[in-house]
Amino acid sequence: MAEPAKKTKNSRTAITPTREDNFPEWYQQVIKAADMAENAPVRGCMIIKPYGFAVWENIQKHFDKMIKLEEVRNAYFPLLIPMSYIAKEADHIDGFAKECAVVTHHRLAKNEEGALAPDPASVLTEPMIIRPTSETIIGEAMHNWVQSYRDLPLKLNQWCNVMRWEMRPRIFLRTAEFLWQEGHNAFATAEEADADARRMLEVYADFLENYMAIPVIKGAKTPDERFPGAIETYTVEAFMQDGKALQSATSHNLGQTFAKSSDIKYLDKDGTQKLAWTTSWGMSTRTIGGLIMTHGDDDGMVMPPRVAPHQVVILPIIHDEADRGKIIEYCENIRKELIAKDISVELDRSDLRNSDKMWNSIKKGVPVRLEVGAREIAGGQLTYTRRDLGKDGKAKVSAEEFINKIGAVLDDMQKDLLAKGRERLNGMVQDAASLKDVRDFFAAEKIGGLRLDYDLIKDSEEFEAIKKDFAVTTRCLPYEDEGRKVIVSKAY
Amino acid sequence: MAEPAKKTKNSRTAITPTREDNFPEWYQQVIKAADMAENAPVRGCMIIKPYGFAVWENIQKHFDKMIKLEEVRNAYFPLLIPMSYIAKEADHIDGFAKECAVVTHHRLAKNEEGALAPDPASVLTEPMIIRPTSETIIGEAMHNWVQSYRDLPLKLNQWCNVMRWEMRPRIFLRTAEFLWQEGHNAFATAEEADADARRMLEVYADFLENYMAIPVIKGAKTPDERFPGAIETYTVEAFMQDGKALQSATSHNLGQTFAKSSDIKYLDKDGTQKLAWTTSWGMSTRTIGGLIMTHGDDDGMVMPPRVAPHQVVILPIIHDEADRGKIIEYCENIRKELIAKDISVELDRSDLRNSDKMWNSIKKGVPVRLEVGAREIAGGQLTYTRRDLGKDGKAKVSAEEFINKIGAVLDDMQKDLLAKGRERLNGMVQDAASLKDVRDFFAAEKIGGLRLDYDLIKDSEEFEAIKKDFAVTTRCLPYEDEGRKVIVSKAY
Repeated sequence: MAEPAKKTKNSRTAITPTREDNFPEWYQQVIKAADMAENAPVRGCMIIKPYGFAVWENIQKHFDKMIKLEEVRNAYFPLLIPMSYIAKEADHIDGFAKECAVVTHHRLAKNEEGALAPDPASVLTEPMIIRPTSETIIGEAMHNWVQSYRDLPLKLNQWCNVMRWEMRPRIFLRTAEFLWQEGHNAFATAEEADADARRMLEVYADFLENYMAIPVIKGAKTPDERFPGAIETYTVEAFMQDGKALQSATSHNLGQTFAKSSDIKYLDKDGTQKLAWTTSWGMSTRTIGGLIMTHGDDDGMVMPPRVAPHQVVILPIIHDEADRGKIIEYCENIRKELIAKDISVELDRSDLRNSDKMWNSIKKGVPVRLEVGAREIAGGQLTYTRRDLGKDGKAKVSAEEFINKIGAVLDDMQKDLLAKGRERLNGMVQDAASLKDVRDFFAAEKIGGLRLDYDLIKDSEEFEAIKKDFAVTTRCLPYEDEGRKVIVSKAY
Repeated sequence: MAEPAKKTKNSRTAITPTREDNFPEWYQQVIKAADMAENAPVRGCMIIKPYGFAVWENIQKHFDKMIKLEEVRNAYFPLLIPMSYIAKEADHIDGFAKECAVVTHHRLAKNEEGALAPDPASVLTEPMIIRPTSETIIGEAMHNWVQSYRDLPLKLNQWCNVMRWEMRPRIFLRTAEFLWQEGHNAFATAEEADADARRMLEVYADFLENYMAIPVIKGAKTPDERFPGAIETYTVEAFMQDGKALQSATSHNLGQTFAKSSDIKYLDKDGTQKLAWTTSWGMSTRTIGGLIMTHGDDDGMVMPPRVAPHQVVILPIIHDEADRGKIIEYCENIRKELIAKDISVELDRSDLRNSDKMWNSIKKGVPVRLEVGAREIAGGQLTYTRRDLGKDGKAKVSAEEFINKIGAVLDDMQKDLLAKGRERLNGMVQDAASLKDVRDFFAAEKIGGLRLDYDLIKDSEEFEAIKKDFAVTTRCLPYEDEGRKVIVSKAY
């Protein structure tokens, strides 16, 4: 654990267990305490509750703007994929995942016993699967849409749900159904496709670092970790507080694999028919799991201001019910002024106890809370607290000062979270000189990952044994090492 | 046909056939010419292409703001619904739709012949269906989330895909898979629930009229047209140019039907457990079909500025390739100034012929097109054209004037489209005094709908015969007639 929770006789944490005591259980408890999501009554699926979904809405809002600057256009393709499309892939890709939801009937009817059941008379002539990803069906559309060099590049994206029958689901991180964006681009040349896959990885890194405050290592996957059919898979890897890596987004140079299987051809300027080159790139609700495991602490969630559902919560502190109306009115005025400055703000009008209101906002990780009571109004000094600094983040200001400086306070917090995350990341990855170092490191259950010469693991039986013995994986060949080094670690 | 296309020897239309010749086929051709959507290779499903999807994005953007003002919060619930949930509904609702996509397996595997097939070893213990709507699964969540009066009202919405196995699919209007928002609210009292269902209908009417420029008739459905389980279904009915009605959004007062079946109870202030009252309300991609059939003309689509993918298209008119660079640069400057004024704008940089560029923008229904050629730049007089006015909508202005007045031009067009639609709507619905009038009207294949005393159709065998003979339906009991009148017409 990089930052163990401080526990003394006099302090208790809002989340039990702490990160140090049991990180996986802490993760579940933070999600519950922040009211972000819960397991659905459908196996392996989740319900994303309003507070968690608001994070996804902010992710969509900001990331969507970024991809539109890349001249990507959104569209929508069908949820169901005919089995024959998958068969086409299965023919030439051995590793193709086949765990998926299969639709076989189109009607429910009462059977002889009067119970509801799939109507045998409604069997589909061809079974269909719920998309696990849409390369095949978008490839078919591209086959129809791409005729000439004028139609390229073609850059498409969809925000949608996908489904993979996960055997060990984990809320946000690995769920049967999840939400994501999947981008699918087609180009005239191999060079453009590779440049695009790399470009989209930069967009992901920019987004993750500057909006989610999640620092990442950019790199290429080793061949065994590539998306089936890709000639390169690029990845942004983050490290969580427990030392495990989280692949936060990926971008694939698919070469001509899908252009071949979907027959995506264009008439070039030279008058000849040529196969196109495609890429795909995706980021999902899994990244919300990464947000929690990067920023959460033993008191709950900590939201980076740029993706926080509310950047400010105003807590009316009511000791005497006679003051309620006056205090709420005062808070309401501040709320309106903050909205006018484009600050997202929640005014807690509930009749909960003052301390419960405060702890709710802490557990939810609202970046800044502002306490407003009768005494504060009378004295003209309000107290605000930055969530990430705890008691050290308290300051007293007039209402006017607060409104004037809140933008800067939020910017500072955003920067500080990224800096803190980057410092942690730097400490997470150590250099290793030999496979013996690697084995010793994971055998000793040390936290984090190792960076070693890529040549050391190539065709190495010992490395294969280490992978099996400790559930270790290769994360990426970092850009900064130009392919000579590989990072290995446990991962989500 | 309310507004037949003017055809003379010297005029041809961009769309064949015209609305008058064959309205259903005209509709398909407009969608194709405007490049909005196409039939998917999956039966009954559609691909929403970038230009069509941009309309949906604008619908989402504006309507989402409106529902957030109503204190509705977005969330996300699972795609799959266990069959037992549907069985619960089927028990007490006779009319419950059972045409749906049924998931029965969770794996594809190669069978003995080496062909891909649903793996018999992966049969689900309980089949699941792809949500046709989410009352049951959201009801289950509400059962868990609602404990006390403090938890009410609970107002939830999700933007998602749903699926209904349509036998006669029609692009946008009736597709197996479609996109929509479904709102689900719960209240402590019957009065609040009915007020909410009515309130959400007002929000729909406001949105449809003021953003989509689709005038509507607000009313209640007759009992036989209500959502199964609802005690009232409120509807906004629009009339298309061919005289058929289109239900554009609905809002249901579900009474305690779903609160009972999902056991949504709260502890009231008086210390007793009470059943909640719920509503649901939805609007889908179907409304894009309504947009096309309300505003399109014989030259293609006409986009109301507030939901148009691009409000302005800039067409560089290039007669001499030597001028291209200079003209594009001039256009680029105008583009940037329009963007700074929050006008969405497309600069057509293609190497198509000038007339092709112009016709593309007409068929796509871009509200205003601006033509910029070398002569125009030299003379300081650009030509812009309002799509809805055709040749009468042409005007000459300097670049500076254009930038200053474009906001007002778009506002005028938005208002004019609504006014034109309202005038058409007023002419669409005639009064009828007897069922004989009704039979005669539809027997004569007249365009539009009829308004008659509701008492005339209650328990009337003749009216049931008319419904069957002419595929006529009751659309609504308009609010303005306070339940005494009913509107009947053919409908989509």
